[in-house]
Amino acid sequence: MGIVRVHGLSISLDGFVAGPDQSLERPIGEHGEQLHRWVFATAFGRAMTGQTGGTTGVDDAMAVGRHRGVGASLMGRNMFGPVRGPWEQSEPWDGWWGEEPPFHHDVVVMTHFPREPLEMLGGTTFHFETGGADAALAAARGYAGDGDILIGGGASTVRQFLERDLIDELHLVLVPVLLGRGESIFAGGGIDFERYVCVEHVSTDAVIHLRLSRVAR
Amino acid sequence: MGIVRVHGLSISLDGFVAGPDQSLERPIGEHGEQLHRWVFATAFGRAMTGQTGGTTGVDDAMAVGRHRGVGASLMGRNMFGPVRGPWEQSEPWDGWWGEEPPFHHDVVVMTHFPREPLEMLGGTTFHFETGGADAALAAARGYAGDGDILIGGGASTVRQFLERDLIDELHLVLVPVLLGRGESIFAGGGIDFERYVCVEHVSTDAVIHLRLSRVAR
Repeated sequence: MGIVRVHGLSISLDGFVAGPDQSLERPIGEHGEQLHRWVFATAFGRAMTGQTGGTTGVDDAMAVGRHRGVGASLMGRNMFGPVRGPWEQSEPWDGWWGEEPPFHHDVVVMTHFPREPLEMLGGTTFHFETGGADAALAAARGYAGDGDILIGGGASTVRQFLERDLIDELHLVLVPVLLGRGESIFAGGGIDFERYVCVEHVSTDAVIHLRLSRVAR
Repeated sequence: MGIVRVHGLSISLDGFVAGPDQSLERPIGEHGEQLHRWVFATAFGRAMTGQTGGTTGVDDAMAVGRHRGVGASLMGRNMFGPVRGPWEQSEPWDGWWGEEPPFHHDVVVMTHFPREPLEMLGGTTFHFETGGADAALAAARGYAGDGDILIGGGASTVRQFLERDLIDELHLVLVPVLLGRGESIFAGGGIDFERYVCVEHVSTDAVIHLRLSRVAR
């Protein structure tokens, strides 16, 4: 059976995974776009946006590794889109990623509002789960087969799974910027961080990759 | 004229410079000793504690660089010692560092309680300043000559100086551990972090060194 992991979660020096005031125009909040710049400099990131070139070093390998071995993804509704409240009937939001999202597997979206599964091109199907974190994880496990379950984000979803002690591995990408305000995965308490040890950390020109692994009790 | 800087401030991945519940027995709080372990593995750290050996790489160079070019230091009372309230007359606390502290220059200690200067062996004199951050900095500047002013800590002192926009350079040592709780320099707001850019970051086996520099307005 695969593990439950967070991979490539970009985080500022002061612990924010998004800036304040997220919106359709600024999905990662004010100044939040700085956090993801490293991805778009890699060959993987450039290919994802239809471009050629890009770096092929550690950053690229880390970006490529995100989906390797993943059987299903899970994300919060705020990561799926900027819309709130019940889904619109006529033109519902179909995600940030266009007709062919880069997942190519089943994706469970946690939401308070029921919605039929949404099948996209390239093997990605979004499933909308209204039963909370445990139900969403069970659903993801059903889709994942022997593969890993990737918890995509955003901050509050990652926090929920950390608080429930459900994440086996946490790969953070520390971006050497300070945001001052935003969405934090550390603030607030309720997470037993002593369960995690950093088993690997490596600096690149752009960022610092940290791999935290949950230790056995 | 020298700059005002923080150097070698060890900080956990979740932004804490000390664990919770600081005391005489645990001056860096619960689990806080992990934050300073990297120093004691260096040749500098071992020499400081009367030992030989130790590493001579980047960590050692960073530790050595802390006091280079420093004309005066400044710290909060909580860094000077665990005692609170008025200074005892008979056996006042004389700092953590024994008869010959490793500063070898004038050290301004911010406190609410007046006390005469305390001259130690090896050129260190502690001056007790009751007039707040601005007065303490002015005093330190008087002692520093052309040298830098090193803001030693702890968290609340560093925060006060950051909030007043008085720190030119901030060298953080990110220790890849999670503390969960403790003293944070980032939490709370009131600091204009957009003024700082990371001009250097380097990983060693033990830690990640980050040098943040204040940009001109």
